[in-house]
Amino acid sequence: MTASLSQAARNAAGRVDEARLWQRVMDMAAFGARADGGVNRPALSKADRQARAQLIEWGAALGLVASLDDAANLFLTRAGTEDGAPVVAGSHLDSQPAGGKFDGAYGVLAALEAVQAMNEARVETRLPIEIVAWTNEEGGRFAPSYTGSMPWSGHRLLSDFLDVCDSDGVRYADALAATLAATPDLPRRPFRRPVTAYVEPHIEQGPLLEQAGLEVGVVTGIQGVRWFTVTVHGRTAHAGTTPLRLREDALQGALRALNALNAAFEDPKDVLRFTIGRVRVEPNTPNAVPDRFTFTIDLRHPDARALRELGDSIADVVERAVAPLSVSIEETLSMAPSVFRGEMVALIARSAKGLGLRTMRLASGAFHDAMFANLRCPAGMIFVPCRNGLSHHPDEYAEPKALAEGARVLTATLVELAGPA
Amino acid sequence: MTASLSQAARNAAGRVDEARLWQRVMDMAAFGARADGGVNRPALSKADRQARAQLIEWGAALGLVASLDDAANLFLTRAGTEDGAPVVAGSHLDSQPAGGKFDGAYGVLAALEAVQAMNEARVETRLPIEIVAWTNEEGGRFAPSYTGSMPWSGHRLLSDFLDVCDSDGVRYADALAATLAATPDLPRRPFRRPVTAYVEPHIEQGPLLEQAGLEVGVVTGIQGVRWFTVTVHGRTAHAGTTPLRLREDALQGALRALNALNAAFEDPKDVLRFTIGRVRVEPNTPNAVPDRFTFTIDLRHPDARALRELGDSIADVVERAVAPLSVSIEETLSMAPSVFRGEMVALIARSAKGLGLRTMRLASGAFHDAMFANLRCPAGMIFVPCRNGLSHHPDEYAEPKALAEGARVLTATLVELAGPA
Repeated sequence: MTASLSQAARNAAGRVDEARLWQRVMDMAAFGARADGGVNRPALSKADRQARAQLIEWGAALGLVASLDDAANLFLTRAGTEDGAPVVAGSHLDSQPAGGKFDGAYGVLAALEAVQAMNEARVETRLPIEIVAWTNEEGGRFAPSYTGSMPWSGHRLLSDFLDVCDSDGVRYADALAATLAATPDLPRRPFRRPVTAYVEPHIEQGPLLEQAGLEVGVVTGIQGVRWFTVTVHGRTAHAGTTPLRLREDALQGALRALNALNAAFEDPKDVLRFTIGRVRVEPNTPNAVPDRFTFTIDLRHPDARALRELGDSIADVVERAVAPLSVSIEETLSMAPSVFRGEMVALIARSAKGLGLRTMRLASGAFHDAMFANLRCPAGMIFVPCRNGLSHHPDEYAEPKALAEGARVLTATLVELAGPA
Repeated sequence: MTASLSQAARNAAGRVDEARLWQRVMDMAAFGARADGGVNRPALSKADRQARAQLIEWGAALGLVASLDDAANLFLTRAGTEDGAPVVAGSHLDSQPAGGKFDGAYGVLAALEAVQAMNEARVETRLPIEIVAWTNEEGGRFAPSYTGSMPWSGHRLLSDFLDVCDSDGVRYADALAATLAATPDLPRRPFRRPVTAYVEPHIEQGPLLEQAGLEVGVVTGIQGVRWFTVTVHGRTAHAGTTPLRLREDALQGALRALNALNAAFEDPKDVLRFTIGRVRVEPNTPNAVPDRFTFTIDLRHPDARALRELGDSIADVVERAVAPLSVSIEETLSMAPSVFRGEMVALIARSAKGLGLRTMRLASGAFHDAMFANLRCPAGMIFVPCRNGLSHHPDEYAEPKALAEGARVLTATLVELAGPA
């Protein structure tokens, strides 16, 4: 694979406008703006509908045709010279309750910027290009997440989610209907239309690019994850009257288990993600020996076999460590890794290098709609650095220059995928 | 010191009636009885007043004269042949919300049994003997605990507690007034009357006597305690996106601190009590690296110097272990050990041995009114074994025989202290 890019791809990427993209990201952040500078834009809320309307308006000014599917995934289509399966790019517009300006919105607006750059460079493509804003990626209001891209991909049925309620008792079906009704003139499209490829730009949400001083992350896939809940069973006793040798202290048992897990999961390459995030102690009073210590394990790895073997080893490691106490272990979540196709990874890398940007290949630690898109078509992701790796937080920040560079890589990638006319 | 007991002490102890004592413990447990077999008898509650009335009635039948002080500590006096400072014995009648039948009530009823045994053995003493039921030993309804024995001892003023409210908003002053008003005919006595000695029988609330197969614990004092709250400060991050080497994981820092504390506090003699009882993690969600891990340390030792030095070492041990994370440490409670006078410890041991019982000297791991009584007069405690060391629990249990043996030791001790007439 050479690092050559078509002249059309270079021309289009060259018209990406850093200031314009930044301004749109700032303007979009006004919908659901928090006083602390963050964004609270729940899926299918009024702020979400306002954001969608803004996107449709911006798209219309560029000649894009909007349409919706039954999950309210919003598409803006730029026609190709032929009527083939489109190349899709985007992300989502909903946010976490205390979210930032960039997670999701950047991917959608980078795709819009890519299309505008193509327009200005007078670059036409053989295949249509579609900008997508997926519904409810975050799951902050309606759980689970990905209720837009899952039915689109065929992974789950939309009807699975209709009875979910938010914390105010609003049904997903009703919030969805209200959002669909807000744009009655938009044509409705089926979930299953042929699609050529999907590309999603996103802030990294991790510190690797910033640490390495690189501009672009070429995402090789999305880590799989397994969640476990481990409960160590002891016996409570009075902290003052019970000698240590006679105790069955669940906290001390858990301490042995955590030490053993740290040792078992030591990874010199630092690829494995191993997190103890939630802890519960009972009776949880200073002068009582704990009789129960519960902790969660979040285990992630991009390699399916490694994830399977490491996760499966937990029971042995923990049981040996806590003995003579007993332990119960429950697996509460299991998602296999998503591996992006090699030609997609190579194309994004080639686009970045062709534009003179320095890249790093990395697996995404967080989930994205691209995970589900990858079930239907070759999918890829472009990461840009964000400050301190922070996201899902009002202080989330990425440099205007970084956002523009990601949009340039996206533009070149889309032109290559859609085929210069 | 020889193991000789006076004949009067032997005679009186010989009249202790196991069945009668057991029946009174069961009868007393009817006041505030829980459906699960436990007892819920908050201080100054209706159930507490009923228990007091029952005690006064039992005492009157034995010729005892009841009186109260301003803290509603209840005394039943058996006259001596001389009008000297009395020997006091007892414990408390209030219970934990989910308490058992024995904690407190046993000590009061053992003292009543001792007096009845003296009566039946026609043993008179030179000094008066007084049975006491201290007010609010547990602190379950009104915190702090020991609002009866603290003002009696002069350690704190009663007025310090009057504005304390229970969870229903009832003021301590009002609950106290209601209890005092329930027995309007009882003479009121001052806190500071001369007192010769204080002896408190109690279930061990620990497993040592049961484990050793011994009948009587001769209590050498009450452990001091120091409480600390340790907070390890890290930085939260996404569990999926942040490599372990770049994390500032407060839980992992706390793990190092706990391992270091375990190593620093290793005590081959198993005298030191070291308990991590309460833990709090933030944000406490499975897929976020904890940015804060708070845990309590309950540290107890019968030796004041050891307790001081061990407690003072915590900051260094923890700070070294958590580095490069930071930690804050707060001391939230400090009570110096209570050491019972050697002659009292020796007398109780002599009484037990004189009655053919096997003893063990041990420090009390829990607090008792004897800690405050020891500020005013020589105080001592007699422990009897309880099942599995369990207390403050509906399943709290002690054998009738064990209770009777403790009462026999008390009877002999009181006769020796008050001086056979």
